Amino acid sequence: MIASPPGKSPDAEVLLGALRDLLGAVGVLTEPSDIARYATDWRGLFTGRPLAVIRPADTTEVAAAVRLCAAARAPIVPQGGNTSMVGGATPSDDGREVVLSLERMRRVRDLDAVDHTMIVEAGVTLQDAQEAAAAAGLLLPLSINSEGSARIGGVLATNAGGNNTLRHGNARELVLGLEVVLADGAVWNGLRRLRKDNTGYCLRQLFVGSEGTLGIITAAALQLQPGLVSHAAALCALPTVESCLALLGRLRRRHWAELQAFEYMSGAAAALVPLAFPEITLPLAASPHYVLVDLGASETFDLEAALEAVLAEAMEAAEVSDAVLSRSDGQRKALWRIREEHSEAQKRAGASIKNDVSVPISAIPELLRAAKAACEALLPGVRTVPFGHLGDGNIHLNLLQPEGMAAADFTARTHELADCVNAVVHRLGGSFSAEHGVGRLKTGMMAEWRGGPELAMMRAIKSALDPAGLFSPQVLLPPQDPDAEAARTLRDA
Amino acid sequence: MIASPPGKSPDAEVLLGALRDLLGAVGVLTEPSDIARYATDWRGLFTGRPLAVIRPADTTEVAAAVRLCAAARAPIVPQGGNTSMVGGATPSDDGREVVLSLERMRRVRDLDAVDHTMIVEAGVTLQDAQEAAAAAGLLLPLSINSEGSARIGGVLATNAGGNNTLRHGNARELVLGLEVVLADGAVWNGLRRLRKDNTGYCLRQLFVGSEGTLGIITAAALQLQPGLVSHAAALCALPTVESCLALLGRLRRRHWAELQAFEYMSGAAAALVPLAFPEITLPLAASPHYVLVDLGASETFDLEAALEAVLAEAMEAAEVSDAVLSRSDGQRKALWRIREEHSEAQKRAGASIKNDVSVPISAIPELLRAAKAACEALLPGVRTVPFGHLGDGNIHLNLLQPEGMAAADFTARTHELADCVNAVVHRLGGSFSAEHGVGRLKTGMMAEWRGGPELAMMRAIKSALDPAGLFSPQVLLPPQDPDAEAARTLRDA
Repeated sequence: MIASPPGKSPDAEVLLGALRDLLGAVGVLTEPSDIARYATDWRGLFTGRPLAVIRPADTTEVAAAVRLCAAARAPIVPQGGNTSMVGGATPSDDGREVVLSLERMRRVRDLDAVDHTMIVEAGVTLQDAQEAAAAAGLLLPLSINSEGSARIGGVLATNAGGNNTLRHGNARELVLGLEVVLADGAVWNGLRRLRKDNTGYCLRQLFVGSEGTLGIITAAALQLQPGLVSHAAALCALPTVESCLALLGRLRRRHWAELQAFEYMSGAAAALVPLAFPEITLPLAASPHYVLVDLGASETFDLEAALEAVLAEAMEAAEVSDAVLSRSDGQRKALWRIREEHSEAQKRAGASIKNDVSVPISAIPELLRAAKAACEALLPGVRTVPFGHLGDGNIHLNLLQPEGMAAADFTARTHELADCVNAVVHRLGGSFSAEHGVGRLKTGMMAEWRGGPELAMMRAIKSALDPAGLFSPQVLLPPQDPDAEAARTLRDA
Repeated sequence: MIASPPGKSPDAEVLLGALRDLLGAVGVLTEPSDIARYATDWRGLFTGRPLAVIRPADTTEVAAAVRLCAAARAPIVPQGGNTSMVGGATPSDDGREVVLSLERMRRVRDLDAVDHTMIVEAGVTLQDAQEAAAAAGLLLPLSINSEGSARIGGVLATNAGGNNTLRHGNARELVLGLEVVLADGAVWNGLRRLRKDNTGYCLRQLFVGSEGTLGIITAAALQLQPGLVSHAAALCALPTVESCLALLGRLRRRHWAELQAFEYMSGAAAALVPLAFPEITLPLAASPHYVLVDLGASETFDLEAALEAVLAEAMEAAEVSDAVLSRSDGQRKALWRIREEHSEAQKRAGASIKNDVSVPISAIPELLRAAKAACEALLPGVRTVPFGHLGDGNIHLNLLQPEGMAAADFTARTHELADCVNAVVHRLGGSFSAEHGVGRLKTGMMAEWRGGPELAMMRAIKSALDPAGLFSPQVLLPPQDPDAEAARTLRDA
């Protein structure tokens, strides 16, 4: 490997000049202090060294910038709110990649209250989109912790999941149409707002979840739902994981249409929250397991009474040992805050290894038992602090450093420990990345767990739509490695 | 063009021998009387002349048969229940194509009542799959007229829609995972049963709706829902199309979670049903518009009283002029039969041209008005008999021959009349094929209405996954025609 020379090559200077002519000074950033926040991911896992950060104002500018970069063979990394958990929007450190930020494209182009649809540009934050829908009495039913900064383009490019997937699906299920700038600079206007359209391959679902590697999403047509006007939430303490599943089954039988979220917190994970946030008190006695239930309806409906009745039955059946029901919006938000602060509480508790995994719901008890046992066997004293979206099978099976171990010694064992969890997940028919995606962090896991015809098809599609490898070359697909693939074939044989 | 020689070539005989060795006599049909039912589509639009019909018993046999056909360069047309409305599963008449029927693969491999999932093979009929789910107290929420003969592989390959899309989505939304035999004979086992799985491109949604042109779906993991235990249905007479939309809005505000279907019938279309089926009486006086409303809930809930209350309000507001509410399962089925017999009633009323179109719901009044006016201007006396799934924007905007016109003279004008409807649909941001797909019938419309980057991407994907053009070469994609594309570019300029 030859290190890049200091400074920019003459070709790079020509490209930067052309980009400045196209986008103006506000559209091209190259000063280190200006580009720092685009060059490092939210978790601080990757710090890149982009050639420039460009900020087009509209789709026409995106397309023209793509043509310039393509001609100069400068790879492009699309970036929205830069909230990836896996370094999905961070440039490499080779100084060649251009970060293309969509942050200036934040128009709500259309909102139709009869059709229950909206068309938003890629740079609109999820929260702004939610608020625009709410102002029309409608619901954009996607809720993730980073919604204040995550932008629609990234939310769709990564197929964000979050809290309401069990009711409304992932981001994927909300997308009716897309506008995308392709690798040759052409603009695909696929912004149809139709529930039914069987005219050829479903291109939109190929771009959703492709993490910016096939094209740049510049706008999207989204399906909205009627706004929720009735609510109820409860925090429950439960004796076993099996009782969590029993409670889920009971709620599905009784209030499936109203069940908006069914969130799990292990006792070990929940106990960290008051330690990190002294103003938060758990309103229930210590318990090995907690569940946050959220019901909502678009009609006037006494959901508090309904939830209370179900919880009374569940306590009668000894599935739930104790529960606290919200009696106001403020109380409901306070219960949710306990769940939402789990990530931050773990961050403050020491070094952690995040495993964003999913299995069929029925396999969750075995997942939690087997992963804990396997990790403890590998590293005695490691603390498993799982929590997450039990209602859709997605558990953040996070691991905290053993008491007294140095953080660096612990993180040095990330690969081993993640592999240990992923082996259990694989045996149970699950996924090593439920909602966070692959990004730059998990390309090795793609090679390990998604090889064979699956990875071969993905490579063929990448070559078909982006033959020069213009878009996010470090993201999602692992580097081709014939030796490793041969070794894998031998191992599987 | 040189006509094919009579009889089969020596290469073809070698292939047939190898297929017989692989699949046995029961697995390879070549006698004209045996293959007739596979060679003509349900509507009788296309009659092909296949080299053979092969009927593998399992996925391994499908894969081996694909390898044999690929080596012999014999194209394969996958076929399920052969219920396509657009000739999507009918072989060409060049004598080279092999029909691969999935009808022997009809195992329900798995049904999990905790996970609400099932894994079914491609040859299971939709009705058998529905019944297997119902036996476990669950709902496979997809309902189409042909469900007794349509098979899961075809239902997914064509992304079937039907009556419940407004509530549960199209077939696409029910698919968690697929098993697919690829063009090189490899088997992709993507039968994961996960609500969240962000590990690379969403391959399953590429195969769903690809109409057999990218691979052969051999099994699918499907998402089920809790079974419905409460029901109510009503047939309503309404004065205007706008009042149909107002009723839909009212139901969405009051009973969105329970609204299973919202079906439209024009007065002209409904009037044909008693003519074709003397045992059916419309239970309401003649009206320009009718809507069939169906509510369902997985909880015990007096939906009849709820629906009655909404309809009383709608009558008060003069949106609904009259309505009849079902008071039993039998009455509900009788109301549904009126809607379900529309296709057959139109068939018996003379020659018809089917336009399976969709627009955003808000554009439906303009669609009906403008398409009727445009068609009548083109062919005075033509009868527009629209009906369909108003709740999801999909109208079967069918045209009946003018009284006294010869059927052949009418059908000779199919292209002109369809084009006239499609121009209106296009102007309103709609689709020329909402749920029936493209098949062999509508490839010309693909070139006409889905050109540019959209068609170019589809061609690139086809080349990437099926480089030799093995699967259904007559289906979905139009033949490459540089002259026509140049002409189109000039016209659009």
